[in-house]
Amino acid sequence: MSLDLSARTVMERCEILSHISEEADCLTRRFATPAMREVNEVVATWMRIAGMTVQIDAIGNIIGRYEASTPGAKTLLLGSHLDTVRDAGKYDGPLGVMVALACVERLHQRGERLPFAIEVLGFADEEGVRYHTAYIGSRAVAGIFDVSTLELRDEDGISLADAIRQFGGNPDPEVLRTPRWQREKLLGYCEVHIEQGPVLEERDLPVGWVPAISGQNRYALTFVGKAGHAGTVPTELRQDALCAASEFILAVESLARTTSGLVATVGKIVVQSSASNVIPGHVVISLDVRHKSGAVLEQACKELRTEGNQISQKRGVTLNWQTVQTDQTIYCAPHMANLLAQAIKQVGYPAFILPSGAGHDGVSLSEITDIAMLFVRCKGGISHHPDESVTAEDVEVALNVMDQFLRSFENELEAGADYNV
Amino acid sequence: MSLDLSARTVMERCEILSHISEEADCLTRRFATPAMREVNEVVATWMRIAGMTVQIDAIGNIIGRYEASTPGAKTLLLGSHLDTVRDAGKYDGPLGVMVALACVERLHQRGERLPFAIEVLGFADEEGVRYHTAYIGSRAVAGIFDVSTLELRDEDGISLADAIRQFGGNPDPEVLRTPRWQREKLLGYCEVHIEQGPVLEERDLPVGWVPAISGQNRYALTFVGKAGHAGTVPTELRQDALCAASEFILAVESLARTTSGLVATVGKIVVQSSASNVIPGHVVISLDVRHKSGAVLEQACKELRTEGNQISQKRGVTLNWQTVQTDQTIYCAPHMANLLAQAIKQVGYPAFILPSGAGHDGVSLSEITDIAMLFVRCKGGISHHPDESVTAEDVEVALNVMDQFLRSFENELEAGADYNV
Repeated sequence: MSLDLSARTVMERCEILSHISEEADCLTRRFATPAMREVNEVVATWMRIAGMTVQIDAIGNIIGRYEASTPGAKTLLLGSHLDTVRDAGKYDGPLGVMVALACVERLHQRGERLPFAIEVLGFADEEGVRYHTAYIGSRAVAGIFDVSTLELRDEDGISLADAIRQFGGNPDPEVLRTPRWQREKLLGYCEVHIEQGPVLEERDLPVGWVPAISGQNRYALTFVGKAGHAGTVPTELRQDALCAASEFILAVESLARTTSGLVATVGKIVVQSSASNVIPGHVVISLDVRHKSGAVLEQACKELRTEGNQISQKRGVTLNWQTVQTDQTIYCAPHMANLLAQAIKQVGYPAFILPSGAGHDGVSLSEITDIAMLFVRCKGGISHHPDESVTAEDVEVALNVMDQFLRSFENELEAGADYNV
Repeated sequence: MSLDLSARTVMERCEILSHISEEADCLTRRFATPAMREVNEVVATWMRIAGMTVQIDAIGNIIGRYEASTPGAKTLLLGSHLDTVRDAGKYDGPLGVMVALACVERLHQRGERLPFAIEVLGFADEEGVRYHTAYIGSRAVAGIFDVSTLELRDEDGISLADAIRQFGGNPDPEVLRTPRWQREKLLGYCEVHIEQGPVLEERDLPVGWVPAISGQNRYALTFVGKAGHAGTVPTELRQDALCAASEFILAVESLARTTSGLVATVGKIVVQSSASNVIPGHVVISLDVRHKSGAVLEQACKELRTEGNQISQKRGVTLNWQTVQTDQTIYCAPHMANLLAQAIKQVGYPAFILPSGAGHDGVSLSEITDIAMLFVRCKGGISHHPDESVTAEDVEVALNVMDQFLRSFENELEAGADYNV
């Protein structure tokens, strides 16, 4: 199979960006760091080559604009984020920006304009590593920036407001709360992203389309029993907080196994004052529960809460259940999802449907426009790790699907479709 | 009940010692620190008041000697340790030294000498907090000091050898490997210690006698599954190392519940690179298993190993099982234990038997002489914590039991008992 030039370009550019890091021996690119500035400069150059005008907004997002065939036309947004986790892979985020850029570059090379403008967005912060926030970049363009976060400080004591200032942005709350576009000026937002899971690989498919970004509830659970000496407290007199937590962890797994589409994860567990010869008296765990149906999600969390209480009561342990975060399910727009699904078929693959269990910038963008997402297979389902890997062949499929998607959009608009419903 | 003067003195002295600490707001007294020097000075004064000659040995143990009625008589050892854990209670260790001291003081006040000498030992290190060792003090007097530990460094980079030197001791390996006494010069070692468990309180008894210091095996178990994104990997494709560990933790608890006298504890659990939205791929737990019968202990560990392997295999997780420590059961000498049991009865309580699940200095001393132990009830089974608590009434019972024990020993010796068998 001879590889398409633009797929190869996307792969090369992801490789180039992966070397722009805060750390010498691995890829780490946090919000508003010198590495982000350098990435924006490089991406700006590529955007200009693709015929776009470029600007960096008040929060540090890079935005390339490719004008429509007619003035005053609406705008379609494409893109993803350019920040990364610590010790990251090359594709989570950058791949979506590079694919969007390549689509525009193809149009530009053909000297073609569409009946709508395209803006390619490279968000300044999706992973939230520096300030333990999420979607700083996309929330700002959507005008839903949480201004209370401006006072947060990073590990060096630098406030978010100062970080924005040092990056050359503008931490004025009014600016950050003003959406870049009014809803009626937009057609929608479509993002290409690696799956970050193993399903496409299991199905032997290069891409899948996303019906919804699953709702997720996060909790912190604290089990308090009674610490004691591991050698001197008989089993029947123990109130072991770790045993209670372990029983709960298995209950979580069991509910996920028996509830279709539910994922539930205990990712963190901390035993306070832990020692190999001390019975755990105080254990905190995280709980992350996700489902694309809000109703199923709420029912599952209710059941787990009941089960947690029963386990604790039986063991003479107290359980404190704290809600950390609840995110509603965000549904993709049916007409856009449908165009994506059709595009996948036209490129020659089954239109496989795959809910997103991970959050994405589309969650913010959904506040001001319709959203859609295309997932690309990644090796072994690995993400947030240097082993993150996609093939050039799959990237070519994604590019062709996006090409076809733009073409279909154009046709629909020219046929008089009204997307302002 | 009017309290005996010497019981009150023991309580007051434990209180005084609890204020001699490395830290201003809590009790922490580690090996060879200025706090240990100060404690030795205070205890030396009390020893002299009780008619003893005092010396500090090469490792920093304090030894008070009360001579026998006849020269050349054998020596009975009493005592416990004077070091503590971090943020310790007042009684774990010091109580045993103060009770021994008070017993001798009673003899001295009556101008009485026994047909054997008594040495009261205050060990310099039993908890092993500073160098992550155990029994440094008692191992040195027993001549079984591990000279390879001299190179260990504390958190400030000070080697054990230098710490001994700075304390005024002598880190010469030959000195530390020479026992203070030959076996034929000793009658035995008897230690009073808080129970550190809840059993005496449950039974409403002030004291109990110890038949054996339970053997204990310690392991580090590593479960390696596959990390992944909490939102994107379906349950059936997960190899969650924490779920495997949880299942094993419940298996450990279950075996302890069904095996009489067995205690088994997972006190530490660490998820590598843990995050609330990452499926745990790598989990390390500690496992601590104890039983007074070596055979039962080995069988239990064998069963747990089999079960751990089955759980892991079923889940596609690998399990690495590393032995950290194996300590044989140390049996108390029947004749001494019997004298203690009789003494308890003579003081008016049932001679309740209570194996020690915790290790004690007697483990080292057993290398050179017979050992015995008396446990004193502590509130709520709490130890290694500022809430550690014993009552003056229980201390008085312990004192009277030890008085009676010394008296019985004297009678037996005068009746011609030969303890050199």
